[in-house]
Amino acid sequence: MTSERIVAIFGATSVVPEIVVSRLPQYVRALTSLNDQGVSVVSSQQLGDMIQMTPAQIRKDLSYFGRFGKQGRGYSVKFLLGELRRILGLDRAWKVCLVGVGRLGRAILSYPGFGPQGFDIVAAFDADPRQVGQMVGGIMVQPMHRMEEVLDEFGIQIAIVAVPVSQVQEVFSQLVGCGVGAIVNYAPTNPQVPHNVRVRNIDPVLALQSMTFYLS
Amino acid sequence: MTSERIVAIFGATSVVPEIVVSRLPQYVRALTSLNDQGVSVVSSQQLGDMIQMTPAQIRKDLSYFGRFGKQGRGYSVKFLLGELRRILGLDRAWKVCLVGVGRLGRAILSYPGFGPQGFDIVAAFDADPRQVGQMVGGIMVQPMHRMEEVLDEFGIQIAIVAVPVSQVQEVFSQLVGCGVGAIVNYAPTNPQVPHNVRVRNIDPVLALQSMTFYLS
Repeated sequence: MTSERIVAIFGATSVVPEIVVSRLPQYVRALTSLNDQGVSVVSSQQLGDMIQMTPAQIRKDLSYFGRFGKQGRGYSVKFLLGELRRILGLDRAWKVCLVGVGRLGRAILSYPGFGPQGFDIVAAFDADPRQVGQMVGGIMVQPMHRMEEVLDEFGIQIAIVAVPVSQVQEVFSQLVGCGVGAIVNYAPTNPQVPHNVRVRNIDPVLALQSMTFYLS
Repeated sequence: MTSERIVAIFGATSVVPEIVVSRLPQYVRALTSLNDQGVSVVSSQQLGDMIQMTPAQIRKDLSYFGRFGKQGRGYSVKFLLGELRRILGLDRAWKVCLVGVGRLGRAILSYPGFGPQGFDIVAAFDADPRQVGQMVGGIMVQPMHRMEEVLDEFGIQIAIVAVPVSQVQEVFSQLVGCGVGAIVNYAPTNPQVPHNVRVRNIDPVLALQSMTFYLS
């Protein structure tokens, strides 16, 4: 299955559904906020209230990774936060490349939220010769044909793609060919990728369309 | 349960998990693409390949809403597309308001992807008196205290929020008080809302953090 991975943590081996993994960053955010406020213990009920999940769902999600709390005592905020960050690979910094430095790409390069969370955009590419060579947010835009070389040089496994729909599939194929295993896609389309490559789509229209079901 | 709704479709009554509803817009997008290409019938395998899901998961998702295809014959693209659009409430246009017209809010107002999908941003609000009264993307920015009046006037049930983290909770509370039932949130935080209000967070950092688990 493409959406699952065998993990061995705390000596236990279990298959973690991708939907569970995709929720963990929200736990990390909530726990970080609690930790910043000096809260040391949190119940699954309190945590659930923060991220709109039921306590049962939280306990089940966490059970894939081991035992983090004692029945009726809640979770240690600092311990759970540290473990989840380690499990997700957030206890290290990741180098990221951006493909596409149009209006959206430039907004992404100037977004201050990536660095503090350990994601450093260190390279940018564009197919447009007029963009290549320009400095954007302190980074020189590279031509597409230099992708493999630059990604190798920096050890980049993560890409953010902000190109027009017509170019997305070609860009994805090139990134995958260069060994990229995780892509955030801002174009409103679902490019084809091998099963071992992760893609997350950032798409406000899909978000809107998933809520109108509930409106009268 | 907040994540489920009782629906009666085709005479059948079933409880649809929110995760299933949240996937339907991707089906709509894939089917729209097939329809535009003149494809009239699609198998669950083909559809699954397009949106990175298994055929079994697709059949199960669709089974919540009735019977859309005959065993072994695939789905009629046009029929399934029409039904899913109707189920999601996408067979009508929705009026949307934006709160926060800073750099991000202005980029959202100028994004050309909402209108063609039936989401029209018709009002914008900002707490900053220097923004109020300005024309942005053809819309005059209104002060926050006019929210109830303006939302009533336009019949707005959907909001896009692009304000700083420190203002998000207050803005959400005001929107909910004005009867908004669906909010797209661009701030990296999870505001509290009543159970009957839907929120989707647009957050590239959460997207990145949900993929590093799979990288070496």
